Amino acid sequence: MKKTAVPQDLKAVGVVGAGRMGTPIIGHLARKGFATRACDLDAARASAVKKLGAQWAASPESLAAESDAILICVGFDREVRELLAQGGPLRKARPGTIVAILSTIHPKTVQQLADECKGAGLHVVDSTVCRGGEAADSGTLLSFVGGGAEVVARLTPVLRAYSSDVVHTGGVGTAQVAKAANNLILWACLVADHEALALARHYGADIEALRKALLISSCANGPLEKWGSQTMAWAEDDMAIVAEMATEAGIALPQAGVNREICRELKPRRYKLELYGR
Amino acid sequence: MKKTAVPQDLKAVGVVGAGRMGTPIIGHLARKGFATRACDLDAARASAVKKLGAQWAASPESLAAESDAILICVGFDREVRELLAQGGPLRKARPGTIVAILSTIHPKTVQQLADECKGAGLHVVDSTVCRGGEAADSGTLLSFVGGGAEVVARLTPVLRAYSSDVVHTGGVGTAQVAKAANNLILWACLVADHEALALARHYGADIEALRKALLISSCANGPLEKWGSQTMAWAEDDMAIVAEMATEAGIALPQAGVNREICRELKPRRYKLELYGR
Amino acid sequence: MKKTAVPQDLKAVGVVGAGRMGTPIIGHLARKGFATRACDLDAARASAVKKLGAQWAASPESLAAESDAILICVGFDREVRELLAQGGPLRKARPGTIVAILSTIHPKTVQQLADECKGAGLHVVDSTVCRGGEAADSGTLLSFVGGGAEVVARLTPVLRAYSSDVVHTGGVGTAQVAKAANNLILWACLVADHEALALARHYGADIEALRKALLISSCANGPLEKWGSQTMAWAEDDMAIVAEMATEAGIALPQAGVNREICRELKPRRYKLELYGR
Amino acid sequence: MKKTAVPQDLKAVGVVGAGRMGTPIIGHLARKGFATRACDLDAARASAVKKLGAQWAASPESLAAESDAILICVGFDREVRELLAQGGPLRKARPGTIVAILSTIHPKTVQQLADECKGAGLHVVDSTVCRGGEAADSGTLLSFVGGGAEVVARLTPVLRAYSSDVVHTGGVGTAQVAKAANNLILWACLVADHEALALARHYGADIEALRKALLISSCANGPLEKWGSQTMAWAEDDMAIVAEMATEAGIALPQAGVNREICRELKPRRYKLELYGR
Repeated sequence: MKKTAVPQDLKAVGVVGAGRMGTPIIGHLARKGFATRACDLDAARASAVKKLGAQWAASPESLAAESDAILICVGFDREVRELLAQGGPLRKARPGTIVAILSTIHPKTVQQLADECKGAGLHVVDSTVCRGGEAADSGTLLSFVGGGAEVVARLTPVLRAYSSDVVHTGGVGTAQVAKAANNLILWACLVADHEALALARHYGADIEALRKALLISSCANGPLEKWGSQTMAWAEDDMAIVAEMATEAGIALPQAGVNREICRELKPRRYKLELYGR
Repeated sequence: MKKTAVPQDLKAVGVVGAGRMGTPIIGHLARKGFATRACDLDAARASAVKKLGAQWAASPESLAAESDAILICVGFDREVRELLAQGGPLRKARPGTIVAILSTIHPKTVQQLADECKGAGLHVVDSTVCRGGEAADSGTLLSFVGGGAEVVARLTPVLRAYSSDVVHTGGVGTAQVAKAANNLILWACLVADHEALALARHYGADIEALRKALLISSCANGPLEKWGSQTMAWAEDDMAIVAEMATEAGIALPQAGVNREICRELKPRRYKLELYGR
Repeated sequence: MKKTAVPQDLKAVGVVGAGRMGTPIIGHLARKGFATRACDLDAARASAVKKLGAQWAASPESLAAESDAILICVGFDREVRELLAQGGPLRKARPGTIVAILSTIHPKTVQQLADECKGAGLHVVDSTVCRGGEAADSGTLLSFVGGGAEVVARLTPVLRAYSSDVVHTGGVGTAQVAKAANNLILWACLVADHEALALARHYGADIEALRKALLISSCANGPLEKWGSQTMAWAEDDMAIVAEMATEAGIALPQAGVNREICRELKPRRYKLELYGR
Repeated sequence: MKKTAVPQDLKAVGVVGAGRMGTPIIGHLARKGFATRACDLDAARASAVKKLGAQWAASPESLAAESDAILICVGFDREVRELLAQGGPLRKARPGTIVAILSTIHPKTVQQLADECKGAGLHVVDSTVCRGGEAADSGTLLSFVGGGAEVVARLTPVLRAYSSDVVHTGGVGTAQVAKAANNLILWACLVADHEALALARHYGADIEALRKALLISSCANGPLEKWGSQTMAWAEDDMAIVAEMATEAGIALPQAGVNREICRELKPRRYKLELYGR
């Protein structure tokens, strides 16, 4: 594995969570020459992590002690909170450490944690990733990053290790807002694509030919392009965050409301047009 | 206005309906060298038509008598039916004339009319247009065309006069099915875009920057790209056709059902994110 | 079969359509002493009609010629239009005949037909029936009636033959508006009842006990009381009329929009809570 | 204020939360002869409580020490949890005390708290109340109660002090399931009533006359009967619990999904039919 020089000041990067997204990110970081450490609740992930050229850390605490920047790639709001809570393992990171939350969680959680961790000298930012697992594999993710300009500038080379596009969306929490907007539209499109293709199927259309034709039409959309490949693994969780955000904002999102429910029913039968709506 | 040679057999083209779509189509046909005639219920359209290099026909009957191919660009199912009904003006077209329905109507209407007009020797096909008014202006429409292979082959040079893409979708009626699928997704995307951006706005996002970032993300979609420019003039009519098709197909399209209603409320306040969902 | 005196001026009543609703209505009219004639496209209905004490008419024309009042109990807008169209069979009714449309159709259809038939001296009113088949059997229907006060007063004894409640809703068409409102709420309740009970079932509730408890609570509703007995035979047609009315009124009814679609999916699996939403 | 004899073993009843529901409940308990103590975070409630013939407790701890049964009438899941948490004020209740949760919260929260409090000898049950504020005032609430038969039997005389109907719904948590089902249907009906009446209004109906007619029709429902009086104060919170329950149950509730969003928009303009859907 070829290692290239790292010209920037952040050299040691810790990754908490070696799952579907974290694992390829770890690989890209190591290949780009970052001193990469990773940990996961599932100790069986150690060998995969080592194969990628990264070190295995026994715990988030030990990882925190050795990192200039920490990327949090866990699944849920609760897990992020526990890592960064008063007395939590990442609170022991060295002052000045940048902690980037890649997990999709509520923007206010990020803002609250960023506030709470200021006293410990930690720079908590959100740095959400779009485009899914295959883009993670190929290092072509889109990263939204929310935080102060200086911190974001320092973190950007780390993000560029696995992201072909990095967009600074504004202050802390805004990367979650951008991700929520992305998710709301993403799942809406996937449902709409199902409804349209299921309807066309009942009228005898050649679905694959139609899909290709629609991709050069006014309704072209990401999920139609990736038709057949999306797992919907996180669709419900994404939409639950959207619902909570809408409640707090005090606005009604009727399409999102019905999409959330449709996603739940759709997930196990996605892409099976013959089953849609019957 | 330069006229280029027309190498194909269809030389005289009639256009019924000189509205927002018909008018630029008339212009492209004339410029490409077709002997173009047009008519409209609104006689005031005559001067605009003539300026484009086409002839004005006093009535659909007189237009029909002189055309190798007729393009129907009227607004509603009822109008198309009246043109092609037993005793209707277009029934008087010469045997062998190709009649292409560009209007967005129910696929079964097209199939029924095609059947009924066979006896008169007319080749009725559907040839729906996507991408909207600006694409009509620039001659870069996408045309879906449904009909027999030979008829479609003969008609294609006519369609190419105003379409940068022509897709043969199958038998008669399939171009309407493709258009309905396009419309269902199109308006779903526009609603989802509104919901996402309205939500993000409540969390302080810079909407124009966010929109651009989402356009390189997994949720990218046509209406997000054209944000701010869609009139929604036909959204309700489009969705009424979708609803009728779903009823006949016997499948439930819950997202389309709620989108139809949202579109009605959204149209007068489209793009005004501060009003969405309050 | 005991016949009671009919004190009012309308003595001969014709019923067009001897289906699920028309048949018991015919029986009640005959039993109450009206000279009752009935016809149906299905000639096999003749013997059932005769058993109820009514006469069989070979056609709507012959029925029209002999009736003081005619009740139209057919299924669809199109059928009602054909009966009352220029040259249609019921146009031959004697001047002064009251024609009551019991069918659920668009209010504007009724208003239009009433207008058109004025010249022939016919009093067209709408007289919609609620509470379903069992109430028809027991003569306890609720009739909404829309028309001029004098005509409604004369018709009321006829309606009372099969209705325990008669409500004069206003001018011609208003009985359809009332019926549409009833139907919108009715099917919304049935869907909500399914959603609530399906949810409770997943949490282990005793559904029949819960249903009874909810019937004395704030959410009590008609379909919950009749749980298990509604066929949903007309739910889709009802909701299609509601959708058309909303389009014309220019207002958005998002819940009705999604209910229409849910009804389509629900009908074949109604009351099977274990299947709901999976 | 006349005090009647209390024949049952639970004599001292504590009420935590003297808000819209708690206050009239305190009054009924005192009038029925229970030794009633109440507390509230808002000390200003003391005089109202005393006027009703109950004692004011300075804190939940002091109330807990003196009560045979405690009724929790606070607003939110979080508040209930804090009261009954390890180290929380109600954990200091005497062994054998019955703690009834009247608040509308997630059924699993109740089950979890009941489990956790077993060690302290507390009998935690859920005892949710339906029919709203006016029924609380008149002592005609419907109480659903979930818990073991013996505990429920002992608690029932307390519930009867303010409830004209008490339904034992099953084990701990089932009263919350019943309440959630009630709420799902309740708000669905209120939305449907708005849609139906707004539609009828556009067609010129006399709304109050129509409402009365619909109340004797197949679509009759609680919120239509109480039209004009519901505050919707808790509608959103109710529907958020329903959404969480549906997520956990893994079933889709598309109507509830859209109703939740509609309720948010509807609340400030409820009963203003002229504004609905525009």
